Amino acid sequence: MSEAHDAVEVIIAKRDGAALTDSQIDWVVDAYTRGAVADEQMSALAMAVLLNGMDRHEISRWTAAMIASGERMDFSSLSRPTADKHSTGGVGDKITLPLAPLVAACGVAVPQLSGRGLGHTGGTLDKLESIPGWRAALSNDEMLAQLESVGAVICAAGDGLAPADKKLYALRDVTGTVEAIPLIASSIMSKKIAEGTGALVLDVKVGTGAFMKDLDRARELAGTMVGLGTDAGVHTVALLTDMSTPLGRTAGNAIEVAESVEVLAGGGPADVVELTLALAREMLAGAGREDVDPADRLADGSAMDAWQAMVRAQGGDPDAPLPTAREQHVVTAPSDGVLTRLDAMAVGLAAWRLGAGRARKEDPVQAGAGVVWHARPGDAVTARAPLFTLLTDDADRFDRALASLDGGYDIAPPGTSYTPDPLVIDRIA
Amino acid sequence: MSEAHDAVEVIIAKRDGAALTDSQIDWVVDAYTRGAVADEQMSALAMAVLLNGMDRHEISRWTAAMIASGERMDFSSLSRPTADKHSTGGVGDKITLPLAPLVAACGVAVPQLSGRGLGHTGGTLDKLESIPGWRAALSNDEMLAQLESVGAVICAAGDGLAPADKKLYALRDVTGTVEAIPLIASSIMSKKIAEGTGALVLDVKVGTGAFMKDLDRARELAGTMVGLGTDAGVHTVALLTDMSTPLGRTAGNAIEVAESVEVLAGGGPADVVELTLALAREMLAGAGREDVDPADRLADGSAMDAWQAMVRAQGGDPDAPLPTAREQHVVTAPSDGVLTRLDAMAVGLAAWRLGAGRARKEDPVQAGAGVVWHARPGDAVTARAPLFTLLTDDADRFDRALASLDGGYDIAPPGTSYTPDPLVIDRIA
Repeated sequence: MSEAHDAVEVIIAKRDGAALTDSQIDWVVDAYTRGAVADEQMSALAMAVLLNGMDRHEISRWTAAMIASGERMDFSSLSRPTADKHSTGGVGDKITLPLAPLVAACGVAVPQLSGRGLGHTGGTLDKLESIPGWRAALSNDEMLAQLESVGAVICAAGDGLAPADKKLYALRDVTGTVEAIPLIASSIMSKKIAEGTGALVLDVKVGTGAFMKDLDRARELAGTMVGLGTDAGVHTVALLTDMSTPLGRTAGNAIEVAESVEVLAGGGPADVVELTLALAREMLAGAGREDVDPADRLADGSAMDAWQAMVRAQGGDPDAPLPTAREQHVVTAPSDGVLTRLDAMAVGLAAWRLGAGRARKEDPVQAGAGVVWHARPGDAVTARAPLFTLLTDDADRFDRALASLDGGYDIAPPGTSYTPDPLVIDRIA
Repeated sequence: MSEAHDAVEVIIAKRDGAALTDSQIDWVVDAYTRGAVADEQMSALAMAVLLNGMDRHEISRWTAAMIASGERMDFSSLSRPTADKHSTGGVGDKITLPLAPLVAACGVAVPQLSGRGLGHTGGTLDKLESIPGWRAALSNDEMLAQLESVGAVICAAGDGLAPADKKLYALRDVTGTVEAIPLIASSIMSKKIAEGTGALVLDVKVGTGAFMKDLDRARELAGTMVGLGTDAGVHTVALLTDMSTPLGRTAGNAIEVAESVEVLAGGGPADVVELTLALAREMLAGAGREDVDPADRLADGSAMDAWQAMVRAQGGDPDAPLPTAREQHVVTAPSDGVLTRLDAMAVGLAAWRLGAGRARKEDPVQAGAGVVWHARPGDAVTARAPLFTLLTDDADRFDRALASLDGGYDIAPPGTSYTPDPLVIDRIA
C-alpha cells in the first residue's frame, strides 16, 4: 500500500524537473489504474515526462508499478530455460516466425506474447492468422503446456498483464505523448518482465520505416530498456538494426508466412536469415546455451519440425495452402540499372493501403494483401521486368498504394557500384 | 470558420517547440469549447505550452480565440471614456473599492468585472457583499445604465464572456498547468478585452503574498499582458507592485470595506492611498484625462459621493453598520522594538483560516472575519501592546490562524533603523 499523494503535486514535481519519489510513482500508477487520477491529469504528467525525462531509477520504479497493476506469469516449473525477443516494429519484419521455433529447436523455450499491427508495420498475430485454423488466444495453462511439449508459443497477451499500461497507452495515443522514451521503454518492458521470461533480446529498429528514425534516439531507447530488464533480473541485450530498407522480399501477412517457411527450409532472403540467426544467438547466450549453433538447426530440419509442431498445437495446418489475394498489379522497372534504394516506409505504407494492415484497432486485415519486391538494393534490374507485385482483394486500392511507392526507390545506371549498410548496427548490453 | 485540424497534430507541434499557426489556435480553442477536443488533450497541450512557451503573436491569437468563444461588451455609447484595473491578487488588496469611485469622480467610467476569492487572497466581490443589501449580479443593461449615471460599477462577470477561459481555467487548476505565463496572461486579458474597456491598468503583484514570487517572472507576465492589450487596441500599462508586505492594516471582508471608506474620507493607511492614487493616475492617463488630479477628488469629497452612489445603485446601504465577527483574539508584542518584517503570505493564510476566504469555489465566507495588524514595518511596537487582532465567528479557528502568523514577522531592538522598499517597483508600458 503506497502513501497517499495528490495528482497535482506529482504533476508539478515532474513539470518543475524533479525526480519523482518511489511513493509518488507507486501512488500515481495505482490511482490512475483505479480511476482516482483522471485522464486529463495523467496526460499532463505524460507530457511533463516527455519534455523533462525520467532517470533510470524512476523508469524502473514506474515499470514495476505497471507490472504490479496486474498478474505476473511464472515459467520456473519448465524443464528448460526461457528466452524471448521483442522488436520495436518494422516493414517486412517476420523474424519472430522463424526465430521462435528455431530457438525452441535449440533447447530454449520461447514464450512470445505478440500483438496485432497498427499503421504501416505489420503484426505477428495478423501474419500467423493467415494460416488456416491457427488461433492466437491461449489460456496461461495452454501456453505452459505448449512450452513444455513444443518449446515455442506465439500468442496474444491476455488482459491480465500490466493493465495500467493498456490504459496509459490508449491515453498517450490521443494526447501526443507516445514518443516519450521513458514511457515507451516502460510500456514494452512491463509486459516482457510480467511475462516472466528469463532472457530477452530487443530488436530496436532505426531508419525511415521504424518508429525511431534517428540513431541517437534508438540507442537511448535501447539503453533504457536494457537497463530496465537488467534491474528486473532479466538477462537483456539489444541489437540496433537497420529499418531504412524493408526486410526480405515481402510485406504482408500470408506472403510473409511463406517467406518465413522458406527460411526454416534452409533458404529465404539472406537478410532475414542473417537477422534470425543473430537474434537466435543472443537468445541462446542469454539463456546459457551459447554452445548450440542455430545454423545447424536450420540445416538439419529440426527448426522446421518445431514450426510445424507449434502451428499444429494452436490449431493451424502447416501444410494447408495459404490464402492469396484476388487482384494483383505488377510495377515494372522503367530502365536497366541497379536498385540503390528501397524505402521501408514507402513499402510499408503501400502494404498497409493494400489491406495488409489496419488504420484502427477494430479494422480487419486481408490475409493475402501486401507487396512483393523482386529486387533488393544492390540487385540489377531490367527495363520492363517486374519490380513490385501489389496484392489485394480490392482493385480500387492500387492507386493509393502506387502513390506511396512513388519516389520510394532509386535506380542508378547499370554497373553502378553499391555498398550495403550493415543490418546489425550495434549491440547494447 | 477555421480549417479543421487534429488535436494530436496541434499538441505535437507545440510539444516539439513549433509556434502554433493561427488556424491551429482558432481550431483548438473553438473545438475545446465545443467539446470536440477532450480534456486530456487540452491538458497535454497546456503542459506543452507551459514548458515550451508561446510567442507574442501566438498569445494574441489564443486570447482572440478565447474572446471569440463568447460575447463582447460595448461601451462606445457612453458619454465618457472608460478605464479599468486588474490586480493579480494580493493580501489586504482592497484597492478596487476606493479606486473605482475615485476614477469615476474624475470623469472616467470604470466598468469593473470582478471575481470572488480563492485561497489566501481575498475577492473584491466578497468584500463588497459584506455591505448590507449590496448585490454583485447585474445585467449588461443595468451595468451600462449605472456607468452612465454613477460612472462606476463593480459586479460579477457574466457567463457570456470568454467561456473557453472558464473551462480551461478549471482544467488547469487540476492538471498542474496554472503557472504557464501565456495561459495566465490570455486568461486575464481575454476577459478584460471582451469587457470592452478603452484603457486598462494592470497591478502585477510580486512577493511572498503574490502568485508571482519572483520579479523576473512578474515582469515577464506584465510585459506579456501589456503586449496583448496593445495588440487588441486597448491602452494598457502595468505597474509592478510589492506584495511581500500586506497592503494597509486589514485583511478580510467588512474590515477592508471600512478601511476603503477611510481612504475615501481622506484618511486611511499611507500605502493604500499611495497605490490608489498611482493606479488612478494611470487609468486617467490611459483614458486621456491626465489633466485631472485624483488627489483633489479625494480631498473634496466627490470620490466619497461616487462610492455612496455606486453602493446604492447596487442595492447596498453605505450608511448601514458593517457586520462584525463574534469572536476576537489579540496577539501582543513580546517585547519593545521595531517591526521590520510582516509577511504577506502569513497574514493572508491567517485571514483565510479565520474564515475570510474559501478553500473551494462553493464555500461561504464570513463577512466579519480577518486580521487587523496594529503596526506596519518601520513602526515601533511596545511589549504587551496589541500587535494583531484576529476576528472570526468560530473560536476554534484561532489555533490554525495563530500557527500561520508564527514566524511571519520580525521585531528588532528599539531604535533599529528601517528603510522601506518602494511600493511601486516598476512601470511597464
